[in-house]
Amino acid sequence: MNLLKNGGLCQMELAQAITKLDALQRKMFAYNHAMGVLYYDGATAAPAGSAANRGETMAVLSEAEYLMATGPEMIDLLDFLYAHNDELTQKQRRIVEMLRKDLAELRCIPQEEYAAASKLMAESTAAWHEAKPRSDFSIFAPYLEKVIETKKRFAHYVKPDIDPYEYYLDTYEPGLTRRKCDEFFAALRARVVPLLKRVQAARQVDASFLTGDFPLEAQRKLSDELMEIMRIDRSFCSIGETEHPFTTNFTKRDVRITTHYYPDNAVSSMYSVIHEGGHALYELHTADEDMYNGLGSGVSMGLHESQSRFYENLVGRSRGFVTFLAPRLRALFLQQLGGVSDDALYRAVNRCEASLVRTEADELTYSLHIMVRYEIEKKLFADEISVAEIPQEWNRLYQEYLGVTPSCDRDGCLQDSHWSDGSFGYFPSYALGSAYGAQMLARMRETVDVDACEKNGDLAPINAWLCEHIWQYGCLYKPAELLERVFETPFDPKYYLDYLETKFTEIYGL
Amino acid sequence: MNLLKNGGLCQMELAQAITKLDALQRKMFAYNHAMGVLYYDGATAAPAGSAANRGETMAVLSEAEYLMATGPEMIDLLDFLYAHNDELTQKQRRIVEMLRKDLAELRCIPQEEYAAASKLMAESTAAWHEAKPRSDFSIFAPYLEKVIETKKRFAHYVKPDIDPYEYYLDTYEPGLTRRKCDEFFAALRARVVPLLKRVQAARQVDASFLTGDFPLEAQRKLSDELMEIMRIDRSFCSIGETEHPFTTNFTKRDVRITTHYYPDNAVSSMYSVIHEGGHALYELHTADEDMYNGLGSGVSMGLHESQSRFYENLVGRSRGFVTFLAPRLRALFLQQLGGVSDDALYRAVNRCEASLVRTEADELTYSLHIMVRYEIEKKLFADEISVAEIPQEWNRLYQEYLGVTPSCDRDGCLQDSHWSDGSFGYFPSYALGSAYGAQMLARMRETVDVDACEKNGDLAPINAWLCEHIWQYGCLYKPAELLERVFETPFDPKYYLDYLETKFTEIYGL
Repeated sequence: MNLLKNGGLCQMELAQAITKLDALQRKMFAYNHAMGVLYYDGATAAPAGSAANRGETMAVLSEAEYLMATGPEMIDLLDFLYAHNDELTQKQRRIVEMLRKDLAELRCIPQEEYAAASKLMAESTAAWHEAKPRSDFSIFAPYLEKVIETKKRFAHYVKPDIDPYEYYLDTYEPGLTRRKCDEFFAALRARVVPLLKRVQAARQVDASFLTGDFPLEAQRKLSDELMEIMRIDRSFCSIGETEHPFTTNFTKRDVRITTHYYPDNAVSSMYSVIHEGGHALYELHTADEDMYNGLGSGVSMGLHESQSRFYENLVGRSRGFVTFLAPRLRALFLQQLGGVSDDALYRAVNRCEASLVRTEADELTYSLHIMVRYEIEKKLFADEISVAEIPQEWNRLYQEYLGVTPSCDRDGCLQDSHWSDGSFGYFPSYALGSAYGAQMLARMRETVDVDACEKNGDLAPINAWLCEHIWQYGCLYKPAELLERVFETPFDPKYYLDYLETKFTEIYGL
Repeated sequence: MNLLKNGGLCQMELAQAITKLDALQRKMFAYNHAMGVLYYDGATAAPAGSAANRGETMAVLSEAEYLMATGPEMIDLLDFLYAHNDELTQKQRRIVEMLRKDLAELRCIPQEEYAAASKLMAESTAAWHEAKPRSDFSIFAPYLEKVIETKKRFAHYVKPDIDPYEYYLDTYEPGLTRRKCDEFFAALRARVVPLLKRVQAARQVDASFLTGDFPLEAQRKLSDELMEIMRIDRSFCSIGETEHPFTTNFTKRDVRITTHYYPDNAVSSMYSVIHEGGHALYELHTADEDMYNGLGSGVSMGLHESQSRFYENLVGRSRGFVTFLAPRLRALFLQQLGGVSDDALYRAVNRCEASLVRTEADELTYSLHIMVRYEIEKKLFADEISVAEIPQEWNRLYQEYLGVTPSCDRDGCLQDSHWSDGSFGYFPSYALGSAYGAQMLARMRETVDVDACEKNGDLAPINAWLCEHIWQYGCLYKPAELLERVFETPFDPKYYLDYLETKFTEIYGL
């Protein structure tokens, strides 16, 4: 009887603790939401001179959130709940595990440094926004130096014994190490480089009709059509326009994708919408009940990129889907594409070319662009090069891997936004994501007639498969765990490399 | 010696208290900034389904700000500083006075009700955004009922002895009462109504060429030109597009104006940009040192409208300025306006017509639109009509004052956003502002050749005069005090009425 009573009391305390943790997470969610909107507004609508004020506001909110994430209430709740780990549901256990990991890391970083870093990232991003159109690296360099110095210091606070760059690799793709990353890129290099050589020696594909006069209004209409084809609910997902396309999500009820319309090129925006749309679909389909807790979001950057690049390339650049889109494109851009056949269009959007800009890169050379960034990040964190040497090193690596050299930093080391807010270690996840996606496609084909879906523009079965196997879980499983459940065999880049070889052998008649 | 020492100590304590208050205000500023950006984003970029989440986030931030504004630190600081009132600078005294007033009011409102109200206003605004394009008042009505109920309850908490509506009149225009407002509108009615009758009996002005095909791209270009002519620094002020134009400011370094482009009407957006530009100029020119304290913003809605309507009407619809703009308008809209003379354009943009939409109203009938809203607000707060009766009462009053009846609520009681976020008592400030502006113009003419400025499109001397007499002070002086300094005689609506009579007598050849 006494035992029962104690058991009952404990149950009640446990329920109360869960409720309190929910409330605390909701509050932290609000701060993240506000900071997210400030960031989005800064990249879209805000006047250029507003960055300093925004940085100060970010610092205040970030400090308040830090205090919640590391405060005595959070510590007590997590200690209590961890002590009752066996009595928690699977979801609750994972939430506690993730929060404890965050807490352990945050507690290593002094509060005032954390707030200052938040302000610095906002200012640095603004500096990048100013530097890129002017192609002036010197505007951005002093901020980037501070960003790298801060990131190194933070990594050292948290994990003083491991390589700071490896710490960030693991942040974006839990479990990823420099060794694994090196091996992965070596495997890619071994097959992609010779394949590219054969492609370059073959008869080239004509894509000249993809450059010309593509009215912005028609491009915006195309974005609307793509969102509908991808079955993205516009009530919960908007499209904005920014220098560099991105996706951000505040909740599964408020996801934003952005694109950049170029008046002389419709394909760039088209594939950025499909890419960001893949990110959006993932975020829009996490579980309703996880809206305000740490599970309600994509689990890692690699998994996220696997989804965006799945739609962009495996679906968006497939023969079936391009054939489905072709009549729509001819109607929207009659003057440019009216006389272009389905086959010519398919080959054109898959044209391989060693080029300068990652986001415009074809499917085959893409991983080489990533390798440039990976090499530079490793060297920056190992103090093998300085920030001032980035442009030179960038140009050297582009020449080495791709055989091309940027004529200005706008098309070189200033092209991506990632470094401006300290997202070092993120880039490898693009290449990993592509490889994950190819292995998912192989699994999907066992039960879904993917070719028919693409040809008919009916993406519902593809969405349903991804939702069933990936999206609905949010962060419930760790990336490696989730992939194991999906693949039922270990991750292997050979699916990706086989896919590339088959596809480009056919297109280039190798 | 002892005295000196105490004095020194007290000085140090005082300096510390000032520093602490500054820091607290900066923190509160950050929360207001975040909430402002969330609001702006909600009105511009956010997907429609995101309102509920945004409301919850607003409630969390609003609660945190409430705790800062009413917490023990604020109370202690204000008590201490008020006790040393004589030792404070003029600015410090005014800051303390304003914060004490806010504190006294906020302490009357229970914290949880304050947070709930913030959430309600966000949801209500979203409902209005949904209701207006559908012209469906029933979508908005249940929210509006809750908004009014909340506003009444809050007024009662703060000032249980006075009429709730009068409380809000005083909020937007400190010192304004129902009696003063009734008298002001009576004075207007006595001269505007007979003047309008004479205008309506006269030969009508042709404005048919202002309706037609006005490409949006050219309209956007016109906005850019107007911003430049008004000398608005775009680094600190952006233009967005919303259903209903508005201005919002986070600091003097981040001001946003919005407009609505109608493809068949260029004048609507043109004058909304000039109007909102007037608000923006005021906010952009408060003192640098007041960026993060309560002084760094326009002092009242009446003063604010005096600036926006000064630019819109006294400058923007003057013969000189229209003549200056005419060649630009003819160049931008060659097909529509290529053959229109300066005089015809001047008369057309000043055409009087009893119409349905306030923001499209001419200068003469404008105050009648305001009177409709004033009457309804008074009746709602006196429980003389219910929310459900608004459409009917709206249409009745439009018929009575203007002789026209809306065919749908979109052009009727759903046209304005003000009620959706509880801005009751705001409307009278538009009419008051117009009258303030006319009296300012009379003063300005004593030292500035206003006609020459308008004719040459050189607004610098006008901006300089307004900056010197009004903008730079922010909230340092109370509205009545500021006006007294500017006018050196009491405020008198006769300047406004004389101005209207002279202008429209000339245009209509009365």
